[in-house]
Amino acid sequence: MNKSRLEAFSDGVFAIVITLLILDIHAPSTSSLSVHDLRPLLPHVVTFVLSFVIVGVYWVAHHHMLHFIRQVDRNLLWLNLLLLLCVVFIPFPASLLGRGFANPLVVRLYGCTLIAKNAAGLFFWLYATSHRELVVAHLNREFVLWVTKIHSSPMLVYAAAVGIAGWSTAISLVLFAAVPVFFIFPNRLLKRRIGAMTQADHDTHA
Amino acid sequence: MNKSRLEAFSDGVFAIVITLLILDIHAPSTSSLSVHDLRPLLPHVVTFVLSFVIVGVYWVAHHHMLHFIRQVDRNLLWLNLLLLLCVVFIPFPASLLGRGFANPLVVRLYGCTLIAKNAAGLFFWLYATSHRELVVAHLNREFVLWVTKIHSSPMLVYAAAVGIAGWSTAISLVLFAAVPVFFIFPNRLLKRRIGAMTQADHDTHA
Amino acid sequence: MNKSRLEAFSDGVFAIVITLLILDIHAPSTSSLSVHDLRPLLPHVVTFVLSFVIVGVYWVAHHHMLHFIRQVDRNLLWLNLLLLLCVVFIPFPASLLGRGFANPLVVRLYGCTLIAKNAAGLFFWLYATSHRELVVAHLNREFVLWVTKIHSSPMLVYAAAVGIAGWSTAISLVLFAAVPVFFIFPNRLLKRRIGAMTQADHDTHA
Amino acid sequence: MNKSRLEAFSDGVFAIVITLLILDIHAPSTSSLSVHDLRPLLPHVVTFVLSFVIVGVYWVAHHHMLHFIRQVDRNLLWLNLLLLLCVVFIPFPASLLGRGFANPLVVRLYGCTLIAKNAAGLFFWLYATSHRELVVAHLNREFVLWVTKIHSSPMLVYAAAVGIAGWSTAISLVLFAAVPVFFIFPNRLLKRRIGAMTQADHDTHA
Repeated sequence: MNKSRLEAFSDGVFAIVITLLILDIHAPSTSSLSVHDLRPLLPHVVTFVLSFVIVGVYWVAHHHMLHFIRQVDRNLLWLNLLLLLCVVFIPFPASLLGRGFANPLVVRLYGCTLIAKNAAGLFFWLYATSHRELVVAHLNREFVLWVTKIHSSPMLVYAAAVGIAGWSTAISLVLFAAVPVFFIFPNRLLKRRIGAMTQADHDTHA
Repeated sequence: MNKSRLEAFSDGVFAIVITLLILDIHAPSTSSLSVHDLRPLLPHVVTFVLSFVIVGVYWVAHHHMLHFIRQVDRNLLWLNLLLLLCVVFIPFPASLLGRGFANPLVVRLYGCTLIAKNAAGLFFWLYATSHRELVVAHLNREFVLWVTKIHSSPMLVYAAAVGIAGWSTAISLVLFAAVPVFFIFPNRLLKRRIGAMTQADHDTHA
Repeated sequence: MNKSRLEAFSDGVFAIVITLLILDIHAPSTSSLSVHDLRPLLPHVVTFVLSFVIVGVYWVAHHHMLHFIRQVDRNLLWLNLLLLLCVVFIPFPASLLGRGFANPLVVRLYGCTLIAKNAAGLFFWLYATSHRELVVAHLNREFVLWVTKIHSSPMLVYAAAVGIAGWSTAISLVLFAAVPVFFIFPNRLLKRRIGAMTQADHDTHA
Repeated sequence: MNKSRLEAFSDGVFAIVITLLILDIHAPSTSSLSVHDLRPLLPHVVTFVLSFVIVGVYWVAHHHMLHFIRQVDRNLLWLNLLLLLCVVFIPFPASLLGRGFANPLVVRLYGCTLIAKNAAGLFFWLYATSHRELVVAHLNREFVLWVTKIHSSPMLVYAAAVGIAGWSTAISLVLFAAVPVFFIFPNRLLKRRIGAMTQADHDTHA
C-alpha cells in the first residue's frame, strides 16, 4: 500500500465527516420562522462547531503522524482503518449531543468516542514507531515519546469529562472544548517541540 | 503541513458542500405529481443555484489565494479550517432560504454566513501576506491590497443586503446574486488585474 | 487555474453525486419485511442503476475532453462549473423518477436535466476548441467535429424521449438507457475513432 | 483513461460509501434518552462496523489489484464502474440489516450484494490479466491464479451464508464477519504469498 494513497483516502473520509456534521442542523418547519424558533437549534450549532474543530484537529494530527512514516505495511493499514472507523462514528454521538447538553449518558457516549479515536491514533503511532523500517530515519526516541504523550493526554481530559458528566455536563463540555483550544491556539509547549522537530527535519533533508 | 494536502482537503470539502446542496430539494410525496406541485419547489431551486454559484466562486477564490502561497504554517492551517467551517455552514441557511424568500430573518442569516466566510478568507489572506516566508517572492504590495479589496467589497454588498432585508428581501436576493455575477462574467476590472498578475507570474517562472 | 485541480475537484463532485444516488432507496419501515414489500422499490433501483451509469458515462466523457485540454482560462472554469451544476442537479429528477415511471412530467424533467448537462458539455468543448491556446497542439478539426457530434447526438435521443413521454414513458426510458449502452458496449464506430486519436496521441508524445 | 485518475475516483467513491454508512444510525427522538432507548440501535451499530470493515477490505483489495495494472482500456474502465456500482449499493442492504438480524430475506439481500461485488472484482481481474498489455510485466500465471482464488473464495462463504439464512441468520452473520477477519488478521497463507510477490516486485524495480 502506497503511503500517498492512504493519505488521500483518509483525507477524503475526514473531509466527508467534517461536512456531514452540518446535515444534523434542521430548523423546525414553520411557515414564519422567528428568532424564538431558532433558539432550540443552539445546542446543535455549538455541537457542530465543537465537532468540526475536534475532527479538524484529528485531521491535522493524522498528517503530522504520517509525516514521519515512510512506508505502510498491512497492519498499519488496518490500524489506519480502525482510526477512520472512530472518526466516521463521531457524527452519531454528535447528533445526540446536538439535542441538548443536559443528558450525562449522551455526554459520556460523545467522550468515549473521542477516547476511542485517540486510542486508535495511539496504537497507530506506537505500532509504526516500533518498526524501524516504517518510519523516517531521523526520528529520535525522545520525539516518539513526546508525540505519544501528546496523543495520550487528551484521553485523560476526555476521561475526566466522562467521569464528571453525572455531576455537571457543563464542565464536561468545557473539557471537550479545552483540547482543540490547546492544540489550535499558539502556546509555548507545542511551538518549541514542533519547531525543534521541523528544524531536525530540514537538516536531514538538506 | 504540506500545501498540496491543504488544497486537496479543502477541494474535498468544497466538492461535498456544493453537492450536498441538492439534498435539500424534495418533491411532495403525492402519487400523481403535477406542475402545480412543483411550483413550491421554485425557491429551493433558486437557492440551490445561487448557493452553488456562490460556493463555486469561493472555491475559485480559494485557489487564487493559494496560488500565491508557498508554505503553510500552523496559524494559516487553522485560518483555513475557520474558512472551511463557514463554507460547511452554508447548507443550513441555504436550506432555510429555500423555504421561501419573504422572511427577513432567514435572508439575514444567509447574508451573515456569507459575510463570515468572506471575513475568514480575508483573515487568511492578510495573515499569509504579512508573513514574507509564507508567500511567493514576486508578490507586490499593490496586488496584495487589490486582493484585499476584492475580498472585502462583497462583504459590503452582503451587509447592504442584510440591512435592506427588513424593507425588501427581493432586493437582498438581487444583491446576493450580484456578487457571483460580477466575478463570473468577464469585466474589464478583473481581467486587467488578473492578466497583469499572471503575466508577472510567467515572467518569474520563466 | 491549474488543470489538474479542476480535474480533482470535478472528480470529487462526480464521485459524490454517483454515491448520493443510493440515499434515495428506502425500504418501508415494517417489522417483518417481505419480498412483497420490496417490490415498490423496483423503480427506485432501476432509476439508481440508470442514473449511476449515465453519471458514469458523463465522468468518462469529462475525462476524454480534458485529455485534449492544455490550459484552463476563467471562462472554461465557469463553463466547467455550469457542467457540474447540471450533474449535481441529477439526483433531484432521479429521486422523482424513482417513485414510478408512469408520470410524463417526471420523465420530461429527467430528460431535460440530461439535455442541459449535454448542452453544458458541448459549450465547454466548443469554447475550449475555438481557443487554440487552451487545447493540445495535435488536435485536428475533424476530431473536434466528431466529439461535437458525439456530444450532440445524445441530446437528440433525450429530446425524442421528452417528446414521446406523453404517449409512452416506457419508450422514453428505453431511449434514456440506450445512450449509455451505446457508449459502454464496444461498437465499431467508437472504437475506430478513439483508436485513431489515441494513435495520433502516441505519435505526438513519442 | 489514466490509471491514477481511475484510482482517485474509485478512492473517492469508497471514502464516501464508508462514511455514509453512519447516516443510518438514528437515535429515537425522546427528550430524555436512556441506555434502554439505545439498545434497539445495537443491530445498526453492529451492521455499521461490519459494513465499514467489509468496504475497507474491498478498498484494500482494489488497490492490490490496481498495483499490478499498468494501463486502463475502455472495457476495464466500465468493469471498474460495475464494481463501484456494487460498492455504492451496499448502504441499502446495510440499512435493512441494521433494523434487525432475524429476517432471512434481508440477510440474503446483504449477502447477494457482497457476492455481486466480488464477482465484479473477479471480472475486473480476469479481464485485466488476460490482456498482457494492461498488466505489469513481472506478473506470473501462478500469482494471477492465486488472486483469482482469493477473490472467489469469499463468494463461496457469502453463498453459504445466503443458503443458511433460512435456518439461522446468526450463522450467516458470523460467516459475513469471517471474511474480513481472515483478510485483516495476519495469517500464514496471506503473508507468505504477498511477501513473495512484493519481493518479486522489488527485484523487478531494482
